[in-house]
Amino acid sequence: MSLACGIDVGGTKIAGGVVDLDGVIIEELRVESPATDAEAIEEAIAGLVTQLRERHPIETVGVGAAGYVDKSRAVVLFAPNVAWRNEDLKGELEKRVQLPVVIENDANAAAWGEFAFGAGRDAEDLLLVTVGTGVGGGLVLDGEVYRGANGVGAEIGHMRVVPNGILCGCGKHGCFEQYASGSALVREARSLAMSGAQIAQGMLRRAGGDLQKITGPLITEAARDGDAGARQQLAELGRWLGEGVASLTEILDPEVVVVGGGVSEADDLLLDPMREAFAGQLVGRGFRPIPGIRKAELGNRAGLIGAADLSRR
Amino acid sequence: MSLACGIDVGGTKIAGGVVDLDGVIIEELRVESPATDAEAIEEAIAGLVTQLRERHPIETVGVGAAGYVDKSRAVVLFAPNVAWRNEDLKGELEKRVQLPVVIENDANAAAWGEFAFGAGRDAEDLLLVTVGTGVGGGLVLDGEVYRGANGVGAEIGHMRVVPNGILCGCGKHGCFEQYASGSALVREARSLAMSGAQIAQGMLRRAGGDLQKITGPLITEAARDGDAGARQQLAELGRWLGEGVASLTEILDPEVVVVGGGVSEADDLLLDPMREAFAGQLVGRGFRPIPGIRKAELGNRAGLIGAADLSRR
Amino acid sequence: MSLACGIDVGGTKIAGGVVDLDGVIIEELRVESPATDAEAIEEAIAGLVTQLRERHPIETVGVGAAGYVDKSRAVVLFAPNVAWRNEDLKGELEKRVQLPVVIENDANAAAWGEFAFGAGRDAEDLLLVTVGTGVGGGLVLDGEVYRGANGVGAEIGHMRVVPNGILCGCGKHGCFEQYASGSALVREARSLAMSGAQIAQGMLRRAGGDLQKITGPLITEAARDGDAGARQQLAELGRWLGEGVASLTEILDPEVVVVGGGVSEADDLLLDPMREAFAGQLVGRGFRPIPGIRKAELGNRAGLIGAADLSRR
Amino acid sequence: MSLACGIDVGGTKIAGGVVDLDGVIIEELRVESPATDAEAIEEAIAGLVTQLRERHPIETVGVGAAGYVDKSRAVVLFAPNVAWRNEDLKGELEKRVQLPVVIENDANAAAWGEFAFGAGRDAEDLLLVTVGTGVGGGLVLDGEVYRGANGVGAEIGHMRVVPNGILCGCGKHGCFEQYASGSALVREARSLAMSGAQIAQGMLRRAGGDLQKITGPLITEAARDGDAGARQQLAELGRWLGEGVASLTEILDPEVVVVGGGVSEADDLLLDPMREAFAGQLVGRGFRPIPGIRKAELGNRAGLIGAADLSRR
Repeated sequence: MSLACGIDVGGTKIAGGVVDLDGVIIEELRVESPATDAEAIEEAIAGLVTQLRERHPIETVGVGAAGYVDKSRAVVLFAPNVAWRNEDLKGELEKRVQLPVVIENDANAAAWGEFAFGAGRDAEDLLLVTVGTGVGGGLVLDGEVYRGANGVGAEIGHMRVVPNGILCGCGKHGCFEQYASGSALVREARSLAMSGAQIAQGMLRRAGGDLQKITGPLITEAARDGDAGARQQLAELGRWLGEGVASLTEILDPEVVVVGGGVSEADDLLLDPMREAFAGQLVGRGFRPIPGIRKAELGNRAGLIGAADLSRR
Repeated sequence: MSLACGIDVGGTKIAGGVVDLDGVIIEELRVESPATDAEAIEEAIAGLVTQLRERHPIETVGVGAAGYVDKSRAVVLFAPNVAWRNEDLKGELEKRVQLPVVIENDANAAAWGEFAFGAGRDAEDLLLVTVGTGVGGGLVLDGEVYRGANGVGAEIGHMRVVPNGILCGCGKHGCFEQYASGSALVREARSLAMSGAQIAQGMLRRAGGDLQKITGPLITEAARDGDAGARQQLAELGRWLGEGVASLTEILDPEVVVVGGGVSEADDLLLDPMREAFAGQLVGRGFRPIPGIRKAELGNRAGLIGAADLSRR
Repeated sequence: MSLACGIDVGGTKIAGGVVDLDGVIIEELRVESPATDAEAIEEAIAGLVTQLRERHPIETVGVGAAGYVDKSRAVVLFAPNVAWRNEDLKGELEKRVQLPVVIENDANAAAWGEFAFGAGRDAEDLLLVTVGTGVGGGLVLDGEVYRGANGVGAEIGHMRVVPNGILCGCGKHGCFEQYASGSALVREARSLAMSGAQIAQGMLRRAGGDLQKITGPLITEAARDGDAGARQQLAELGRWLGEGVASLTEILDPEVVVVGGGVSEADDLLLDPMREAFAGQLVGRGFRPIPGIRKAELGNRAGLIGAADLSRR
Repeated sequence: MSLACGIDVGGTKIAGGVVDLDGVIIEELRVESPATDAEAIEEAIAGLVTQLRERHPIETVGVGAAGYVDKSRAVVLFAPNVAWRNEDLKGELEKRVQLPVVIENDANAAAWGEFAFGAGRDAEDLLLVTVGTGVGGGLVLDGEVYRGANGVGAEIGHMRVVPNGILCGCGKHGCFEQYASGSALVREARSLAMSGAQIAQGMLRRAGGDLQKITGPLITEAARDGDAGARQQLAELGRWLGEGVASLTEILDPEVVVVGGGVSEADDLLLDPMREAFAGQLVGRGFRPIPGIRKAELGNRAGLIGAADLSRR
C-alpha cells in the first residue's frame, strides 16, 4: 500500500495528513503556523511528517503552498503570506525528512484533489474555482495539473472584469475577486444594510444590529432560512461568478467547473444563479457542450489530499 | 524526407501547400472557395491535395478550419462560414485522398506554426493573438496544442472585457474583439473622423474625404508616416490588447505572446503601447517573469504550415 | 377666453391643436409632414394655424420642435430630422400667420405640459423623462422651463452611463439612451430570444417566431399577461432608468420625476423596478426627500399642449 | 456703502469676512472650529460677526455650510461634518447677532462668488466644479443660484460614471468623485509608484521614497517641473473631469464651466486635457456653442464672498 503525506500550509494552521491511494485521509494532524518565519515553518512541516511517519509507512511528501511555485515543483518563487522568496523548499524539506518531496501551488493541489477523488473524478479537464476571501483557481487540463510557463498561472481572481472598477489589494482595478469572492459578498451585504434598505434588515437583525457581524456564513444561513435579502446577495454573487467563468470557459473550454471555498456551502442558492448567468454568456450556445458546474466535494481538505497524491506522480 | 500537405480553408480562398520538416512551403496553390457548399469545399480540398501530390511525396494532410473541431481532430462540430455541422471532415477527405488527414481549428494550427517554426520556436508555451477582423487565439501549452475539453477553447475574442459594453456579433456585450480587433480600430477611427476631430483629419485626407476608405492598412501607413491621429488610434488598440492579454496571462501564464493578424503589421506602433499596458496590469510584477510580446513571423501562412506539421504528429 | 394654438412637429405628422387655459384641446388637426423640406413644413404649420383660426379666436402660437432652439425662443439652431439650420422659424411663421409665435424644444414643451396640466401640476420642479425610440428629457425648475445657456440642455439621453459602452447614433459610447430607451428594450429582448434562452420563448411565440416582430408594445402586453421574460426585460429597463435618474437627481434635485413616452404604458411593471433602483442609488437616503416617480398623464399630446400654453407666457 | 459679513464653516477653521459690493474682503478673521459641537459652532460664528461688526457697519450675514440647506435658506437639513440635523441655523444666529442671516450650501455660495466677482462675472449661467478631496458642484442658472427642489442639488460628485466602479464613501459604486477628485489623483499616483512603474519614480523620489508623501501639491509641482509621470496623472484626471463635465453639459447646458478646488492650481496641465476630453464627448459638435472651461479666480475665499453677497439679495 502506497501512502503519501500531504501538507497544507495555511495562514494560521499547518495541516498534515496521511493519504492512501483512494484519497482517503488515514490520520491528520494540525499545528499552529509560525506565521512568517520561513525556517520555523519548515521545521513545523518536518515535525508533522516525522510524527505521521512513526505510525505510517509514508513514501513521499506533497506540500501545497499559497504562492508562485516553479515548474520543477521545488522552489517557491514568492509567497504572499510567508517570507519565502526563491526558497528551495523541496531541498530544505528533503534534507530534514529524507523522503522525496514535491511542492505545489495550493489551488493546483486542490484542483488535483477534486479531479482525482472529488467532484471531477469522472472528468479529464477541470477548472476549480474557490470562492473564499478571494477567488482562487486551479486547472487540470488533459489529465495533468496545468502549471503555466512560470508556475504563476490560474490566477483567475485577477482577470479584470470591470475596467476602472473596484480597487483590488493587488493594486489593479476591477479584478474578478473584487466581485465574485466571499469578501465581495460580505462587503455588498453590509453596504446594503448600512444604506437602510428594507431588504437587508433581516440580515442585520440576525447580526444583532452590528454590521461587522454580517459574515459569509450568516448570509448563507439566512438565505437557507428564506431571507430575501440574503438570497439576492448570493444570487448577485452567483451572477458575477457565472459571467466570469463564462469568460474563462471561452478561453479554457473545461469539461467541468468545480466550485469550492467557504461560500460554496450555499449550494444551489449560489450555484443556480451562477449556472443561469454562465449559460447566458457563452458564445455558440446550441453548438457546443456546456460544462457542468458542480460543488466541490472535499471541502478544505482538497489541497492536502491533492498535494499528497501529486507527490506520488 | 517527410512532406505534409497543409490546407487553409478561408472565406474566399482555399490554400494548399506542401510543407517540409523545417516548415518551409515547397509549393503552394490557391483556388476560389465554393463558399458555403460543404461538399464542394471537400471536393476542392481533395483537388488541391491531388494536384500537389502529383509532384511531391506527401504522406499526411492537415486541414485548418475556422470553427469548433472535436478533440479527435476529425469532426467539425460547427463552422461559422461553412455549412459544416457535425461534419466528419476527416472521414470525407480520407475517402477522397487516401491519405491520413487531421482537422485542426485554424487558430490552433497557426499557433502551432508560430510555435514550431515562427516567433515561438524557442518556447514551450505560447499564446497566439491574431488581430484581424476579430480577435482570435491559439494556445500551445507544454509543447502541445491545447484543444480544450470540447475543441472550443482559446476563443479569447469572446472574453468579456466591458460589462454592458459594445454589442458583439455573437450576441454578447463587451467582448474583447469589440475593443481589440482591426474592426474596432477602423470603427473608432471613422467615428473620430466623423466627429470632426482635428486629430483625425490626416486620416480622412488620406481617404480622400471618404470615411469608408479609412481602413486598417491606411491607418497603419499613416501612423508610419507620423500621423498623430493614426498613432493615437493604434496606441489605443494596443492598450486594449495589452490589458486583455494581461488577464489572459493571469490565467494561462504563457512563456511568450505572439501577435499576428493584419494589424500586427503596424509593428511597434501597436506592440509598444501593448507591452506598456500589459506590464502595467500584471499582478505580482517584480516576483514573476513577464512574458515577451512578439510579432508573428509566418504571416497568413502560419495556419497552413501549422496544419501540415500537426498532421505528422 | 384666451386660446392658444399648439403645434407638434413630428417626423411623419404635424399636429396642431387649440388649447384653452385649462390645457384642454378644443380641436386638433393632423397633416402629413413634408419630411425634410424646411419651407414646406413652415407652409404646413401655417396652414394648420389658418384652419384652426377660422373656428377659434387663437391669440398665440407655440411650436414644439425636436432640436436645439435658441434662448429667445425664435431660432432653430439645428434639427436632427428637418433641414433647419439657424432657421428663424418664429420670423418665418409670424410673417405667414400674423400672430405671435414662440418656438420651444419639443421635450421642454412636453415637460411644461405635464407641469402645467398633467402629472406635475402640483409641483414646482419637474424632470420629464420620455422613454421612446430614445430617451428625452425636459426640465421645469422653480416654475420655469429650463432652456440652458444655449437652448441645448436637458439632453439626458446622452449622459454617459457606461464608459466604452454601446455605440450611440450620436457617435459616443455608452449614452443613457442606449440602455434605457424603448429601442434598448427591444434590442435586448430580441438578442435574448435569438440566443435561444428559455425565458424569452414566450415573447418569441407571441411574435410568431419572427424576431423582428418583438416590439415594445408586444413586450408590454406580454408582461401584463404575466410573461416572465417580458417582465424581466421591463425590470431591467426600469433598473437602468432608475439608476440614471438617480444621477440626474443628484445634479438637479427635482421635486418630481415624470416618465412619459411609449414604454411608460407598461406602468408599474416598468416604474416599480425603476423606483427601487432609484432609491437604492441616492446619496444621503434618510436625510433627504426622495422625489416621487410618476407616469405622465398627457400621453403624446403633452408637447402640443405645453407649446400652446408656453406661447401665452 | 452696503457691507455684508460672509462666514465659511470648514472642517477645521471658521472664517468670517466683511465683503463690500465689489466682492472685496475688507477684513477677515479665522478661528478654530469647535468641530462637531453644533452649539459651540453657532457661538463661534456669532463671535466672529460681533468682532467684525465693531469695526464695520455690517447689514447682513451669509453663512456657507457644507450640507443640505432647505430652500428658505434657513435650516440645515443635514451636515456631514457637524451635528446639525434639521437645525434652524438662521433662527439661532439671528437670535445671537440681531442681523438678517441667510444660510447657503457652501458650493452654491462659492458658485455665486465666482459668478458675481470671479471667473464667471461675464456669464449668466455657470457650473462650478471644485476638485479637492471630493468633487463638489454649484450651479448658477439664469442669473440665480440653483438650489433644487429640496436644497440637495448640484451634488455632481455623486453622479455615477462607472457601473460597479470604485466604492465611494457614500456607499455607492462608481461616483464621479472617485475618478475626478484630488483624492483620486493621489490614490492613482501612489498605486502607480507602489507598482514600481518607471514613470512614477520621479514623484516617488520627490516624496523621499515615502508613498504617503505623494500629495496633490507634490504632483502639481512635479508636473510643472516637467515630470512625465505627474503630467500623465494630471492628464488622466483631466480626462475624467472632461468626460464627466460633458455629461453635465448635456443636462445643464451651462454658459461657462469654472474649475476650482486645490487641484485647479495645476492650471492648463489639468485644464487642457479636460478641455480636449470634454469637447470629444459632446453631442452635436459643430451645431452647438461649446462652453468655455476656466480656472476659478477667488480660490478658497469664493464661498465666503459668495455667502456674503447672497445675504444682500
